[in-house]
Amino acid sequence: MLIVLHHWAADKDVAQVKRTIASLGLKPVAIPGAERTAIGVIGNQGWIEDSPFRGIKSIREIIHVTKPYKLVSRDFHPSDTVVNLPGKVRIGGRSPFLVIGGPCAIEGRDQIFQTARFLKKVGVKVLRAGAYKPRTSPHSFQGLREEGLEILDAVRKETGILVVTEVMSPEQVGLAAEKVDILQIGARNMQNFDLLNEVGRSGKPVVLKRGLSATVEEWLASAEYILLGGNRNVILCERGIRTFETATRNTADLAVVPLVKSLSHLPVIFDPSHATGRRDLVPQMALASVVAGAHGVMIEVHPDPEHALSDGPQSLHFKEFEALCRRISGLEGFMRRSSRK
Amino acid sequence: MLIVLHHWAADKDVAQVKRTIASLGLKPVAIPGAERTAIGVIGNQGWIEDSPFRGIKSIREIIHVTKPYKLVSRDFHPSDTVVNLPGKVRIGGRSPFLVIGGPCAIEGRDQIFQTARFLKKVGVKVLRAGAYKPRTSPHSFQGLREEGLEILDAVRKETGILVVTEVMSPEQVGLAAEKVDILQIGARNMQNFDLLNEVGRSGKPVVLKRGLSATVEEWLASAEYILLGGNRNVILCERGIRTFETATRNTADLAVVPLVKSLSHLPVIFDPSHATGRRDLVPQMALASVVAGAHGVMIEVHPDPEHALSDGPQSLHFKEFEALCRRISGLEGFMRRSSRK
Amino acid sequence: MLIVLHHWAADKDVAQVKRTIASLGLKPVAIPGAERTAIGVIGNQGWIEDSPFRGIKSIREIIHVTKPYKLVSRDFHPSDTVVNLPGKVRIGGRSPFLVIGGPCAIEGRDQIFQTARFLKKVGVKVLRAGAYKPRTSPHSFQGLREEGLEILDAVRKETGILVVTEVMSPEQVGLAAEKVDILQIGARNMQNFDLLNEVGRSGKPVVLKRGLSATVEEWLASAEYILLGGNRNVILCERGIRTFETATRNTADLAVVPLVKSLSHLPVIFDPSHATGRRDLVPQMALASVVAGAHGVMIEVHPDPEHALSDGPQSLHFKEFEALCRRISGLEGFMRRSSRK
Amino acid sequence: MLIVLHHWAADKDVAQVKRTIASLGLKPVAIPGAERTAIGVIGNQGWIEDSPFRGIKSIREIIHVTKPYKLVSRDFHPSDTVVNLPGKVRIGGRSPFLVIGGPCAIEGRDQIFQTARFLKKVGVKVLRAGAYKPRTSPHSFQGLREEGLEILDAVRKETGILVVTEVMSPEQVGLAAEKVDILQIGARNMQNFDLLNEVGRSGKPVVLKRGLSATVEEWLASAEYILLGGNRNVILCERGIRTFETATRNTADLAVVPLVKSLSHLPVIFDPSHATGRRDLVPQMALASVVAGAHGVMIEVHPDPEHALSDGPQSLHFKEFEALCRRISGLEGFMRRSSRK
Repeated sequence: MLIVLHHWAADKDVAQVKRTIASLGLKPVAIPGAERTAIGVIGNQGWIEDSPFRGIKSIREIIHVTKPYKLVSRDFHPSDTVVNLPGKVRIGGRSPFLVIGGPCAIEGRDQIFQTARFLKKVGVKVLRAGAYKPRTSPHSFQGLREEGLEILDAVRKETGILVVTEVMSPEQVGLAAEKVDILQIGARNMQNFDLLNEVGRSGKPVVLKRGLSATVEEWLASAEYILLGGNRNVILCERGIRTFETATRNTADLAVVPLVKSLSHLPVIFDPSHATGRRDLVPQMALASVVAGAHGVMIEVHPDPEHALSDGPQSLHFKEFEALCRRISGLEGFMRRSSRK
Repeated sequence: MLIVLHHWAADKDVAQVKRTIASLGLKPVAIPGAERTAIGVIGNQGWIEDSPFRGIKSIREIIHVTKPYKLVSRDFHPSDTVVNLPGKVRIGGRSPFLVIGGPCAIEGRDQIFQTARFLKKVGVKVLRAGAYKPRTSPHSFQGLREEGLEILDAVRKETGILVVTEVMSPEQVGLAAEKVDILQIGARNMQNFDLLNEVGRSGKPVVLKRGLSATVEEWLASAEYILLGGNRNVILCERGIRTFETATRNTADLAVVPLVKSLSHLPVIFDPSHATGRRDLVPQMALASVVAGAHGVMIEVHPDPEHALSDGPQSLHFKEFEALCRRISGLEGFMRRSSRK
Repeated sequence: MLIVLHHWAADKDVAQVKRTIASLGLKPVAIPGAERTAIGVIGNQGWIEDSPFRGIKSIREIIHVTKPYKLVSRDFHPSDTVVNLPGKVRIGGRSPFLVIGGPCAIEGRDQIFQTARFLKKVGVKVLRAGAYKPRTSPHSFQGLREEGLEILDAVRKETGILVVTEVMSPEQVGLAAEKVDILQIGARNMQNFDLLNEVGRSGKPVVLKRGLSATVEEWLASAEYILLGGNRNVILCERGIRTFETATRNTADLAVVPLVKSLSHLPVIFDPSHATGRRDLVPQMALASVVAGAHGVMIEVHPDPEHALSDGPQSLHFKEFEALCRRISGLEGFMRRSSRK
Repeated sequence: MLIVLHHWAADKDVAQVKRTIASLGLKPVAIPGAERTAIGVIGNQGWIEDSPFRGIKSIREIIHVTKPYKLVSRDFHPSDTVVNLPGKVRIGGRSPFLVIGGPCAIEGRDQIFQTARFLKKVGVKVLRAGAYKPRTSPHSFQGLREEGLEILDAVRKETGILVVTEVMSPEQVGLAAEKVDILQIGARNMQNFDLLNEVGRSGKPVVLKRGLSATVEEWLASAEYILLGGNRNVILCERGIRTFETATRNTADLAVVPLVKSLSHLPVIFDPSHATGRRDLVPQMALASVVAGAHGVMIEVHPDPEHALSDGPQSLHFKEFEALCRRISGLEGFMRRSSRK
């Protein structure tokens, strides 16, 4: 429920509405916005009756929100959310397009340091690399786990690069939150609700990947778990969905970028590596996402993709990645200039 | 890798093979079977060379297993697994068809006791009911959680019915394992690998639901996590997959029942309630699963479906459920008689 | 629009309603049914106003049909349609379960005669075989076409078996209608509307396969084209849909059998061969369809599947087919007996 | 099969290879290309033995093509195909990005003339509009059919705009080919093989839309039917695929643009209107397709979308369309300049 007040509503009117909400055992949420004063209601499981609010003069309109998410919605937060990362790096709104690069899995100290130094050199400020690896088969490489987190902590301290890594389980959140700058919830865990709750409590910036077969509504409802836990630093990431087509690893659903931006205030990035699964398609899809309005991309790059322990076929070589970064930067500049016209 | 020995192989030959496997840092697994002596190899991440085994005379054949699962496979365990539940209830192989019934969510003590007594009366030995509810939206009813577990513990103690309930997170496994007879991994958590590992360690019988968009191979690989943890009491459950069709809640993929039985030794059950999402389609699909070879069904039934807190439209009324049980029983008898001919 | 009259309505009342409908440039359709007198309205493209009907006393209720099909719907035709085939063979309603068998493609005279004689011997009354073959690639075998139709005409004349074959284009309908007993619209042509119209005009019994990615609503709307052309002899055939799962050729959507029977009066059959694409899964899925309420099955059987020009892996050997027919017959008998109880 | 000759091969060597191919009852196809002399083989249904070619010295390599298409493949035609349209308009290769605009259906003369004049004014050279409309329900508007073709013929003669329209049946091809400049095969008819054959014979430029659930391989194989009929003027059009996601009408599979360009020499365009089904998503997806490498876009625009007989919600208003054309043009210029660097 969303309660919109008349423009003339005074502080005591707002207070009256909030008291009424609280008296129902629910929680009022102030909705920011220059154009209107509004108060959201959360905490209910189902329909709320209008009757307790009927006598309040300052109320202009009561909107029943039937979506499974509220805090995530543009209705509750009309202006873009900008997520602040350490080192004055920002993502969302009109912030610069953010490129995140790195290997699928941490394979060792050298690989990570080599990649981080390369990224710094080409101007990329965030490194991705997996310590905990969710693998279909228990017989596949499961990641270096805690040892991997230590490598990430070392690389960010020595090089100053920011680091994002995936957490798969509530227990991993505490340690990971100390060792890296951004947590990631992978596609398989998009509806691991206890993990979402834990990440919500951590307050850490988090990349929330869309599930393999998650609708946009379900994806945003998963983000709602994190925001409801008190953490507004959520970055949504489209990484392709599962369809009948096998020519690509997944089907890049790029149209959700503008769609999600219309439904939610949260930043949205795109992962062309998982979305296509093919190195040769990554550059054009990464560029397309700039134009579609994404706030950033997450791209797999590896010092030696042919010998990567996972996702080699979709990882760029350093040279390819560097060329792509230049093209992204040029295209971003053009888009910015032309939107100002 | 699967190493098949000549029929004349003696104990010392078997021991030699096992020693060789161990010397490679891998683990030998004895493969049961009257017709052949075989030893499986687990612990490798990738291809194992044949060379260390070449000189061993007792080896008849070396089979490289390229599937993402081994212990789950019929290659490693040719005969059907029968899972033993308390009270001499069994599932799998030629055991009687097992009907599991109950509401989606535990709503209160009365609802559960009423349902359990009804189930006992109609001869159903296992009650399903959710304490922890994975819900798309954090604003929906999340289940009674620990209070729900206590109700389940009470109902099984007082009525003698067996109880199955879902766990969503590794932390919940310990307590739930004390309070119920069978754990369930829901569709959304099929690739929550830490949860699979924890359930593997618990040794408890577990129903592993297929993920909404999981391939059969991924589903069996998830079961492999549990078996690898030392728990062979896994019951697979097909509950419909997500497709373009919206006339039913999911698409019941009944053909996986005979398919999975050819690939794996584990018991397979079918959930017609989630697979269709419509009360009117449940009976015929439940009956169809008997004929397709399922080892059991899991059906939602509620004392008052019209006022259920979740899944009302797919829950049967007591009367409908009772009639269905009679039809299942008749059909099962017919199938058993005709297979003996 | 569906106009339901009071039980006391006389012939002149019915005539009045029909005149009013005609005066709007629309077509009245008498709705059979012992329990109520009703008149359907077809010919409109969009909403019809109630106002012209308001003064008519004999009208009890006006129902606006918003589905894309009307004649196909149970609302317009409450009782089951039974399609009469030559030789007193019937399908639909309470008619005996109909088995249709035969090879994917006509490869030659011998193959067809050998199959037809085998089918006759095991009591199967309808042969399927493709003269025109819709093939993904133009470089694949395209069928014997007109030569194939001649073979079918010969086999039905010499053996008395009924024959069903696919037509792919409006031009083929005329000749095919002379040479065979039942036409088939394949999955790829389910929305080839000119073909549907032409088959509608032919009056021939027709098997309408569900499209690879057709919703139930679209499938029934395609049947509507045929009925609207004046041909009520439509047999719906579920043959699996395209999903992400590649372990089976398609995903058998068996739940649509009871679903479609609730929405429509037309007979529904099931094709386990295309639905699974695997010989080993055909028997159990065919049997499951009997229980799910299908009116028949269409199964691929070939004298020599290993050398079939198409669909070999999903074709049964004669022996397997014969055994399956016996099992279907036993199961059908059981289902009939138990429904009488 | 593809036969690559040594660079020193003379005309008589080529002739010898062609003779050998013909002697097997197959057809040689010269493969253009500055870098190598090669001869393709078509007409076979299955594997061709190498043996008849073994003694021929001029042969450097024999490549067995296992894809279901050959003429469509880059292997058989390494350089980009440019389709020449009347009025010196071209599409494909390095030709200017081609915008096609117009309403879903022809509703009347005024609507079409108004749209055509608007398009001319904003520099768009091709009008799309449907005379024959494939509609799910026979109760929906089916198009003006032949009357619609006459309107298209009139508009192109009076305004000089090029016209593309859909054909649904082989019989319509002859007349449509006289009245319009480009034929279109719709998504539902992508595997209407007789229609593909007929369009192949017509020689007319043709837009071939990808089927709702067609794989890229099937789509290219459908194009092969047209090329095999002697018509190389095929323009592929991605228009979204059917998936589980219902927030958009279809799922825009933009990654197939660069993918198809790597597999085939044919031009590829993108239809953001059907791919998304939402007016608000069309502009960003149209722009994204420019960057992804599409050779053009096909966009629905209507003088009065709110009252369109079909597809109103996805049709742009004139003003929106004009603004989009300007942005496309600016972006295309930028991409061209930056690719020259």
